[in-house]
Amino acid sequence: MAVEPTPIRRPRADRARQVADVLRQQIHAGAFDRTLPSEQHLAAEFAASRNTVRDALALLKDEGLIDRAPKVGTHVAQRKVDHGLDALTGLKETLKGYGEVRNEVRSAGPVTPPPAVARRLELAPGEEAIFVERLRYLGDLPLSLDLTYLAPDIGNEIITRDLEHNDIFTLIEEISGGPLGSADLAMEAITADAHSAATLLVPDGAALLLLERLTRLDDNRPVDLEYIRMRGDRVTMRSSLIRDTTSWELT
Amino acid sequence: MAVEPTPIRRPRADRARQVADVLRQQIHAGAFDRTLPSEQHLAAEFAASRNTVRDALALLKDEGLIDRAPKVGTHVAQRKVDHGLDALTGLKETLKGYGEVRNEVRSAGPVTPPPAVARRLELAPGEEAIFVERLRYLGDLPLSLDLTYLAPDIGNEIITRDLEHNDIFTLIEEISGGPLGSADLAMEAITADAHSAATLLVPDGAALLLLERLTRLDDNRPVDLEYIRMRGDRVTMRSSLIRDTTSWELT
Repeated sequence: MAVEPTPIRRPRADRARQVADVLRQQIHAGAFDRTLPSEQHLAAEFAASRNTVRDALALLKDEGLIDRAPKVGTHVAQRKVDHGLDALTGLKETLKGYGEVRNEVRSAGPVTPPPAVARRLELAPGEEAIFVERLRYLGDLPLSLDLTYLAPDIGNEIITRDLEHNDIFTLIEEISGGPLGSADLAMEAITADAHSAATLLVPDGAALLLLERLTRLDDNRPVDLEYIRMRGDRVTMRSSLIRDTTSWELT
Repeated sequence: MAVEPTPIRRPRADRARQVADVLRQQIHAGAFDRTLPSEQHLAAEFAASRNTVRDALALLKDEGLIDRAPKVGTHVAQRKVDHGLDALTGLKETLKGYGEVRNEVRSAGPVTPPPAVARRLELAPGEEAIFVERLRYLGDLPLSLDLTYLAPDIGNEIITRDLEHNDIFTLIEEISGGPLGSADLAMEAITADAHSAATLLVPDGAALLLLERLTRLDDNRPVDLEYIRMRGDRVTMRSSLIRDTTSWELT
């Protein structure tokens, strides 16, 4: 920074983090196309030392956002895809334009759900649910690993359909004959255990977004409980809020 | 599972992940108070082998959610706090009832923001912004590290106030004399670099939720751009969506 924010000099690691956060956002926004400006250029733009810029770039490299090589320079390794938090759309619908979404169905069939799942889906004790596990690809790389429990009436029909090429949300709306009603979402950051990492083709310990989502039909009946592990290096969740006098509305 | 979801037997790691996801949700919901049921009890509940349950508990231990010790059993290490995604409330307001929020102000003062930040805050080239860096505690432990760029008129006033005990959102509303208007949010999962980890008191490489948020006043002027690193083991972001004929509304 041209003007140090406090009289005391801040540690370089603090300044590097500050630079990295702004660069990260610029990369997501497509500001650099494919090649990042030189260290020298970035140092001028951020009014930072070259060492600070180098540390900032090292942070982004560790996150898998950029590649760096001597003489070749700094390149965007991959742009993340944006996933809206503010509408109940499936992945395929959300990522229209980003590339082909394909689902590898790793498991699909009836299970006796644990009581905690049965309660959330409002099933009678011992009633079967349908469990579906999918590894979801965007292009050639895995994007997410989705574990889904479905109410039996809808789930039994869903597993007869083409799960490889369709979102479960789309199939639910087709089968129930109406739009989805509401959903509760919980999002966490976790590190990938060895097996999840191997499945998602990321390094052991890589950051994942874990989304848990309970979705209800228009009549308020819960039908779909999902646990979704998204590759942290490939997905950004986005939403917008507008204050509308009394409440908040998503745009 | 009592009924295997597919004719082929699934690898134990897949079944352990499935059990861990449901247990994680139960821990968040406070289902166990402090002590988890025995492996034997959980094996019966999940219709899983004890080895599968043991692997599931190992996953949750690695995430820092539970402690395990021979003879002592399995305990909830810490319950996560819920942070609403669906309203523009500051941390202190959000966490009322969870404990005391205290902010350690690590930096506060004017900076010449990088062009990418100036553009988002709609500042003239070269115009100063106010930068504030806070390490935010809930009780004795850090919860998040927040880097904030403020429009100068509001920011200059904010840094004269008690930043240790107030949310910036509250101060903005006090100073601007009106409610906040809207915000754009982007959420990612990243691993903690060594320095961020040391600051947040988590192991190197721990999972963090990174929230980037641009907040506008009622008249649509952007005044507050934040980069917030939240400890993945302490925070769950939650929201609810309701379909309201034509649009989605947060509850």
